[in-house]
Amino acid sequence: MSEPRPITPVILSGGSGTRLWPLSRSQRPKQLLGLTHPETMLQLTVRRAQGPGYAPPVIVANAAHADLIEAQLAETAVASGLLILEPDARNTAPAIALAAFAASDPDDLLLVMPSDHVIENEIGFRAAVEAARGVVEGGWLATFGMTPDKPETGYGYIRIGAALDAGVYRAEKFVEKPSREVAETYLAERRYAWNGGIFLFRAGSYVDALERHAPQIAEAVRASVVAGRRVGDRLYPEADAFRRSPSDSVDYAVMEKAERVAVVPVEIGWSDVGSWDALHEIAPKDSDGNVHRGEVVAIDTSGCLIRTDGPLVAAVGVKDLIIVATGDAVLVLPRGSSQDVKRAIEQLKRDGHVTLDRAVV
Amino acid sequence: MSEPRPITPVILSGGSGTRLWPLSRSQRPKQLLGLTHPETMLQLTVRRAQGPGYAPPVIVANAAHADLIEAQLAETAVASGLLILEPDARNTAPAIALAAFAASDPDDLLLVMPSDHVIENEIGFRAAVEAARGVVEGGWLATFGMTPDKPETGYGYIRIGAALDAGVYRAEKFVEKPSREVAETYLAERRYAWNGGIFLFRAGSYVDALERHAPQIAEAVRASVVAGRRVGDRLYPEADAFRRSPSDSVDYAVMEKAERVAVVPVEIGWSDVGSWDALHEIAPKDSDGNVHRGEVVAIDTSGCLIRTDGPLVAAVGVKDLIIVATGDAVLVLPRGSSQDVKRAIEQLKRDGHVTLDRAVV
Repeated sequence: MSEPRPITPVILSGGSGTRLWPLSRSQRPKQLLGLTHPETMLQLTVRRAQGPGYAPPVIVANAAHADLIEAQLAETAVASGLLILEPDARNTAPAIALAAFAASDPDDLLLVMPSDHVIENEIGFRAAVEAARGVVEGGWLATFGMTPDKPETGYGYIRIGAALDAGVYRAEKFVEKPSREVAETYLAERRYAWNGGIFLFRAGSYVDALERHAPQIAEAVRASVVAGRRVGDRLYPEADAFRRSPSDSVDYAVMEKAERVAVVPVEIGWSDVGSWDALHEIAPKDSDGNVHRGEVVAIDTSGCLIRTDGPLVAAVGVKDLIIVATGDAVLVLPRGSSQDVKRAIEQLKRDGHVTLDRAVV
Repeated sequence: MSEPRPITPVILSGGSGTRLWPLSRSQRPKQLLGLTHPETMLQLTVRRAQGPGYAPPVIVANAAHADLIEAQLAETAVASGLLILEPDARNTAPAIALAAFAASDPDDLLLVMPSDHVIENEIGFRAAVEAARGVVEGGWLATFGMTPDKPETGYGYIRIGAALDAGVYRAEKFVEKPSREVAETYLAERRYAWNGGIFLFRAGSYVDALERHAPQIAEAVRASVVAGRRVGDRLYPEADAFRRSPSDSVDYAVMEKAERVAVVPVEIGWSDVGSWDALHEIAPKDSDGNVHRGEVVAIDTSGCLIRTDGPLVAAVGVKDLIIVATGDAVLVLPRGSSQDVKRAIEQLKRDGHVTLDRAVV
């Protein structure tokens, strides 16, 4: 029997999320920041899937971040793979298609990962990836389903069907973000997992599914890769062809429609770190439930996230607040409402805060 | 009858208060900041007592602030008087003594004013000063007593005695900061006024009272003025002599002991702007009770003071908070607890925040 085929990490770094404003900015989005750790989310993601059994990573990113990404990768000392630079943002289905069409062999196993999620249990994660290998080599598209511990309404869910292999099940149904009531029934039923946007499949299986369920994306992305320009480790897909691709998520375009989709339920300490609240939740806290980072002086505070990359922050007698400071902006809001960051950003744009607008967008 | 003798404003600028940290700093204390108005507190104080009937001001200040003070005075276009630069801080009794010994004539009328208070009704203030002129020319030391509108425990009180002249009464007793219960009885009795630290007296009357009740201060300060050095409009009292002076407040050293002390009760919109809470209280508010200044984006906030001289501040969904940002520090605390700024500063010093320490002390 031959060596098992190595797995190629495909890391999606296209996000420009503003939910972690004022720290995340268009020029340095969340995945390029150190949020939970001195290393950046991208660096942690690259490290998560390296070593024996793993090929060098393929990173699909916004061309504006190319230099910063290369600098961050150089710090990880992980063997450099391919950096595919999107001429435009077209969501995840085309982004993954770039990696699939660029693969040297349709049998290449692609482990698709967002670049900005946390996984605490890396050993558990790799074991789950190995558990999926059998069905994936047999042509299935595999997802990893995060076992819910609360009725979260911010994620999509996957209904877990019949067993296919040890720890691997048919993905019976993909459900968009549910209402609170529905999420509660999912939690109680214990047959649903969160869709964390992590996938394993053969490059060829993805291409086949894409051609069947999203032929316009397949055609446009194939043409952009064929006519693309390779410069060192960088691949510049041909822009006009790529821009013809519809913008769609891999869930909508492929996973919800394909027939042979598997799910591997996991409990691996996953978080999408999608808000300051999420960051407070996953971070180690002091005995008063505070998470502080940077030059912070906190007296009689509890339940706070106080973080600064710029000015010193002094807080006295405050409770359950999120305070985030950078050199040019300070955000203050109650814990539990960090989704409201969006409202602040909308207001900033409306008010024409030029400095901020330049920085935020 | 001759023209009435002009009044010489004596403006005490020795304070280095940290209660308005992070805005107030040792290099730019409260009186040299624009807090309620684009003009600084010192500039407002100088303007309050100028024009017909007023001589050019005498300012007693920390030598470290000399250049900044001269620059601020130049902006007011008020005729420059004398700038007396204290070699060291010795509290108000010696500071006023410097001006009294430097006066050219013992009959000069000195109107002593802190440099960092607000008086909304300047016409009322000047009328009160004129009301005191008669008793003061007769040798009394006059104070101006602010009619209390709440049982404030942060101020000293003056008990109003028998009438001496129209609107002028004997100051029967000076009381240190009372307890809440005592302050409430004072408010109910309507015979007490707040001691705002504003005085009118002949230079000679003050010197006489000082020689009688605080002879060590009188001796040391007289010697320091006699041996002082005059450079243009600046007077540098001789340092060794000045440092021999005990450090004491004018209230303790003179007013509480002197026999002929008058009080003029006034309602002139006075505030010592002694805290961020006080500043919130006196400032015009929006319909949600907010006071914002600088680049602030506030959504669903109420009862807040948000002020920045540096980074943009975005606040969403917060209530009754004080948020103050400068280029190198941010303060967040609940409204009503702004005295706790002191605790933050103590902690900063203890923790050895070098940058801040340099800035704060």
